[in-house]
Amino acid sequence: MIKATIITIGDELLIGQVIDTNSAYIAQQLNIAGFAVNRRIAVGDNAGDIKKALDEEKLYSQIILITGGLGPTADDITKPLLCQYFGGKMVVNDEAFANVQNIVANILKRPFTDRNKKQAQVPDVCTVIQNKRGTAPGMIFFENVEGTKTIFVSMPGVPYEMMGMMQQDVIPLLKSTFGTAAIAHRTLVLAGVGESTIADMLINFESQLPDNIKLAYLPSYGMLRLRLTATHANAVTNTQMIEEQFEQLQNLVSAYLVSLTDEPIETTVANLLIKNTATLSTAESCTGGYIAHLFTSIAGSSAFFEGSIISYANDVKQNLLGVQHQTLLNNGAVSKAVVLQMAAGALQNLQSTYTIAVSGIMGPSGGTKDKPVGTVWICVGNTQKLVAEQFYFRFDRALNIKLTAAAAINMLRKFILEIN
Amino acid sequence: MIKATIITIGDELLIGQVIDTNSAYIAQQLNIAGFAVNRRIAVGDNAGDIKKALDEEKLYSQIILITGGLGPTADDITKPLLCQYFGGKMVVNDEAFANVQNIVANILKRPFTDRNKKQAQVPDVCTVIQNKRGTAPGMIFFENVEGTKTIFVSMPGVPYEMMGMMQQDVIPLLKSTFGTAAIAHRTLVLAGVGESTIADMLINFESQLPDNIKLAYLPSYGMLRLRLTATHANAVTNTQMIEEQFEQLQNLVSAYLVSLTDEPIETTVANLLIKNTATLSTAESCTGGYIAHLFTSIAGSSAFFEGSIISYANDVKQNLLGVQHQTLLNNGAVSKAVVLQMAAGALQNLQSTYTIAVSGIMGPSGGTKDKPVGTVWICVGNTQKLVAEQFYFRFDRALNIKLTAAAAINMLRKFILEIN
Repeated sequence: MIKATIITIGDELLIGQVIDTNSAYIAQQLNIAGFAVNRRIAVGDNAGDIKKALDEEKLYSQIILITGGLGPTADDITKPLLCQYFGGKMVVNDEAFANVQNIVANILKRPFTDRNKKQAQVPDVCTVIQNKRGTAPGMIFFENVEGTKTIFVSMPGVPYEMMGMMQQDVIPLLKSTFGTAAIAHRTLVLAGVGESTIADMLINFESQLPDNIKLAYLPSYGMLRLRLTATHANAVTNTQMIEEQFEQLQNLVSAYLVSLTDEPIETTVANLLIKNTATLSTAESCTGGYIAHLFTSIAGSSAFFEGSIISYANDVKQNLLGVQHQTLLNNGAVSKAVVLQMAAGALQNLQSTYTIAVSGIMGPSGGTKDKPVGTVWICVGNTQKLVAEQFYFRFDRALNIKLTAAAAINMLRKFILEIN
Repeated sequence: MIKATIITIGDELLIGQVIDTNSAYIAQQLNIAGFAVNRRIAVGDNAGDIKKALDEEKLYSQIILITGGLGPTADDITKPLLCQYFGGKMVVNDEAFANVQNIVANILKRPFTDRNKKQAQVPDVCTVIQNKRGTAPGMIFFENVEGTKTIFVSMPGVPYEMMGMMQQDVIPLLKSTFGTAAIAHRTLVLAGVGESTIADMLINFESQLPDNIKLAYLPSYGMLRLRLTATHANAVTNTQMIEEQFEQLQNLVSAYLVSLTDEPIETTVANLLIKNTATLSTAESCTGGYIAHLFTSIAGSSAFFEGSIISYANDVKQNLLGVQHQTLLNNGAVSKAVVLQMAAGALQNLQSTYTIAVSGIMGPSGGTKDKPVGTVWICVGNTQKLVAEQFYFRFDRALNIKLTAAAAINMLRKFILEIN
């Protein structure tokens, strides 16, 4: 397989003020296209460090994808360095110039400055990738490294702009230059089980796997994804081999199986709802709208999502969800009785087929001896039946919110499957 | 300054199934403590690639922090490699063993397996960092690299576990080993302005900056952070110099200033609300609970956050927010008239001092010629006054939701400042 290195440039990466999401996206796209990412490197806005990374990585990888360092305030370093590295001189690219002019005049509605003009300059030894989503053009360079054709691509660091270039220009270029290797992935998603338990269940399965198939464990937020990757010169053999193993794998873990597709659990549930022409609402206290956010992040969610009542204050629980004052007094807001009433109120006021209600203590404060931080009550159901369950999470606020959401959505998934 | 490299290990990083948040956190912590991160490297679960990264990085950095590769299904590679690299042999660490036993028996409530026992094994040449948040112990190694004392620390990849070790063990160790350099940062946050515009405004400011002070531009989601970093042998001089420059900087950009602290805009607004003993609610259509999620992610948000009505369906807008059927028919859900009624309904039904109401088309579908994808109406106000404004965002669904939230929270911030 052709190897690739991803180099991200920017001081902000080295002081941790920005989380690098670009590398993950680029790695995904390369992987799907059949290229193997060898290493990922982050360096600062420093010509020496950028040059060193280029010098080193081109010895190992035939594809070097670079993002960042092209913003209007940082491009004094990366672009001139690349120009010098590949032996060119800076020239204005007409199409890029027209694009910058158009964005500045018609979208930003600002005067055109020298800085804008500089954005349209590129080394005369590169092939320009026009930026359809922003001002900074991308650049493609070729070099013969010890007799091997090596491609360098420099893209802006703005994720949306980089993604456009990857899809429309870079991946097609790499495929046409190197051809596509036969690589196949199959991923399934599990919930309610730990990595160690599954690893123990799969000892025999792993030991019988052919050499060209690898199993990876990918735990995240209470979910566990298992991914098989097969590489074989022959694409047909490859598909056949991975499908055989994938079928075995799903039988072995069927007790915890959520999905045979690599998708978030809310997407699995959204598809279930759409299939059953059913709708959903949520009544959220401790998750504060996060469950609603997960569902409404799905394109087309208006087909099944009615709405939510985020009842952070007890008054809201009473006024909009019909929770009884006496129930709050007797049981506290984090209790089975309260989530049952919240769910009933949501079904009535939001008129959905199903609902999810949650109330808990996410921390860092608010815990008591009886109900420590991480105590959560979750209720799911419909107008015929409501099911409530208590959970304990033992992490920080942000993670407790995510784990509560994942547990709640999984409870609803099981409920829908049981009654249908 | 003492230089550091961060090495993250895991195949999942190279195929892009996981976004690396650990590197940003570690970089932040190192930076605050006065150590400069030189490079960040991600490699797969492959002994050769890990060894190569160690060999190379120790020539440039005196601090090598490693995360990942220690999970129950991946630790066959990293731990033995480190053991061999530093010339030790694997032994069971009693304290780590007791910890794993306790977690397996009392928290996971599962039988203790050989795999669990292996987690408590460490090379006999390391100093063990006990994991107070999970099973995999951390490991510290020292090596003399060409006469220079170099520290290697291996930590688990689970963010919550790694963070505990960084705070309690690693940063104190590094400070006691190397002392702390005099480094100072000051960051301010702007909204409603582009990077180029500010860069043009700051040309003279930047040119007069002393050599030991650097200015960085950090744009994200409609916000722009400006960070000054000063390094000087004398901590007192350092603080004095950065404060002088920071004061100049804030005067120059005062028209767009949101905060003099590096914090998310919802935190700025939360502090304003608490200072004015005021409360907040939201009425969200297109953001689907994301604004509520941002506010309720703040610890202690129950002090000011009442709740929300997520009115995805028009029925919910009518029934719970009192939006008139005729208004929806005449203007459509994405209109000034509708967000004004949503806001009024939220103030009445959620009984808050202030409210935010949003309705828009986030895409990819749902756009029309008159109201293309990205059209958003935002209304903020209180029972005395409501202000509504139209926005156009031109990105994908996820980014449009984030930009809408940032714009809405900034509108509320300005509203509160104007009336107080």
